Amino acid sequence: MNRQQLFEQIQKKRSFLCVGLDTDILKIPKHLLDTSDPVFSFNKEIIDTTAEFSVAYKPNLAFYESLGSQGWESLEKTVHYVREKHPGIFLIADAKRGDIGNTSNLYARAFFEKLDFDAVTVAPYMGEDSVKPFMTYPEKWVILLALTSNKGAFDFQFLKDEQSGDLLFESVLKTSQNWGTIENMMYVVGATKAEKLKEIRQIVPDHFLLVPGVGAQGGSLQEVAKNGMNSRCGLLVNSSRGIIYASANKDFAEKAGEAAKEVQQEMKILLQEGGLL
Amino acid sequence: MNRQQLFEQIQKKRSFLCVGLDTDILKIPKHLLDTSDPVFSFNKEIIDTTAEFSVAYKPNLAFYESLGSQGWESLEKTVHYVREKHPGIFLIADAKRGDIGNTSNLYARAFFEKLDFDAVTVAPYMGEDSVKPFMTYPEKWVILLALTSNKGAFDFQFLKDEQSGDLLFESVLKTSQNWGTIENMMYVVGATKAEKLKEIRQIVPDHFLLVPGVGAQGGSLQEVAKNGMNSRCGLLVNSSRGIIYASANKDFAEKAGEAAKEVQQEMKILLQEGGLL
Repeated sequence: MNRQQLFEQIQKKRSFLCVGLDTDILKIPKHLLDTSDPVFSFNKEIIDTTAEFSVAYKPNLAFYESLGSQGWESLEKTVHYVREKHPGIFLIADAKRGDIGNTSNLYARAFFEKLDFDAVTVAPYMGEDSVKPFMTYPEKWVILLALTSNKGAFDFQFLKDEQSGDLLFESVLKTSQNWGTIENMMYVVGATKAEKLKEIRQIVPDHFLLVPGVGAQGGSLQEVAKNGMNSRCGLLVNSSRGIIYASANKDFAEKAGEAAKEVQQEMKILLQEGGLL
Repeated sequence: MNRQQLFEQIQKKRSFLCVGLDTDILKIPKHLLDTSDPVFSFNKEIIDTTAEFSVAYKPNLAFYESLGSQGWESLEKTVHYVREKHPGIFLIADAKRGDIGNTSNLYARAFFEKLDFDAVTVAPYMGEDSVKPFMTYPEKWVILLALTSNKGAFDFQFLKDEQSGDLLFESVLKTSQNWGTIENMMYVVGATKAEKLKEIRQIVPDHFLLVPGVGAQGGSLQEVAKNGMNSRCGLLVNSSRGIIYASANKDFAEKAGEAAKEVQQEMKILLQEGGLL
């Protein structure tokens, strides 16, 4: 999916919600455990009730890998299901990969050929040749970690480079801009650091940002929109636990739909305020 | 496996060789493609002929993921095979993972519970809470990326922190020492940066280092041993392509064994020179 198509989906659905499919076998409703593939059964129902209000889904790979090859199968089925039943969805593999060039090539093959994802999250530590292989596929995206939502973000991401005066996450934003374009690169910026979004928008005014950390992690949607929205929205705001675990009972999918709708209603207003609808 | 046991294996085999199982379906001998699981068939034969000369194996996850759930199955079978047939091997999941705490927990579950690896490579960008969940398992290890062997290492790993004067990889080494011990933490230091090993040994004198980049990537084994060896050897030197693709014909396993033996003979001399045998 390209940038314009993504923006059109945002306008059509009046939403910039990304639903995080952090599907934990230990947390899903017990009645699903009798199905042949509980994780996929859960995802399928969640997707059906939330797709109307969401432009993107983001399975976090850790949850699938923790179940071994079976988990990987559930992931494959989830991707196929979205492609078949819900056209127009932007699919993000939240994998936080990154390795030397010839190895990143294979990760790209995994997520863009073997699985039909639109984007992969990538860690920047290993630099350019670890990131570029993901950008050789047309209309596929890298979402590079810049400023993450967790406490550990303070360990290294705020170190200040002596020469440029930039903090590490700023160096990542500036340097990596030369590796791709606004058509194949996005950045992860945690909602828990929303006050930084204004400065970040000065460095990357036009890029899309994937913003986790709203909801369970404590970030504010209003704050994110105020500081981060651009002329093409430029935001995909992720919510995982707040939506997919809205209920632990048989009504889990219905409640997830309601939770997604609630966020979407808020987003609609923010899009209107931003003059984008 | 704990540190002492690893050192004992090194002494017993007179080797600190780690064989990288970067098994690419496009590169393995053609006759294996007729077997039900070509990747596993390849690994099995390679392991059988090289285990005598190697203390560790390191499957790189990208190669398995590029084949989807089937690749993950090949990986599972490879781990089981090593555990069953070759006790005493140190098994490294070269996965370069790292995510917020509750997610890293699941990656740890994937590699230490679902699969019986001894260690996982982890990227440091997201800081302490992304790394620590891997260290809650007794006798399991984190191998944290410090200074990598690729060209992209120069993009961020050498940025100099204004306050401490440390380069980023030095900050990673210093800060992360507080997260674990020499019994559950190792570092990745690329052989292509072997001249840096002396300085690195001043920061982490006792930790084991996983050293990729010897062979195809151009690093020198002598240089690595001279600058990096400590009183418990403290080195696992990885070779992938130079060993597993020593021949592309039916004799691939035999030739891999010969290539591994050649490296082992060199390592034996280096261990003797270091007074460790």
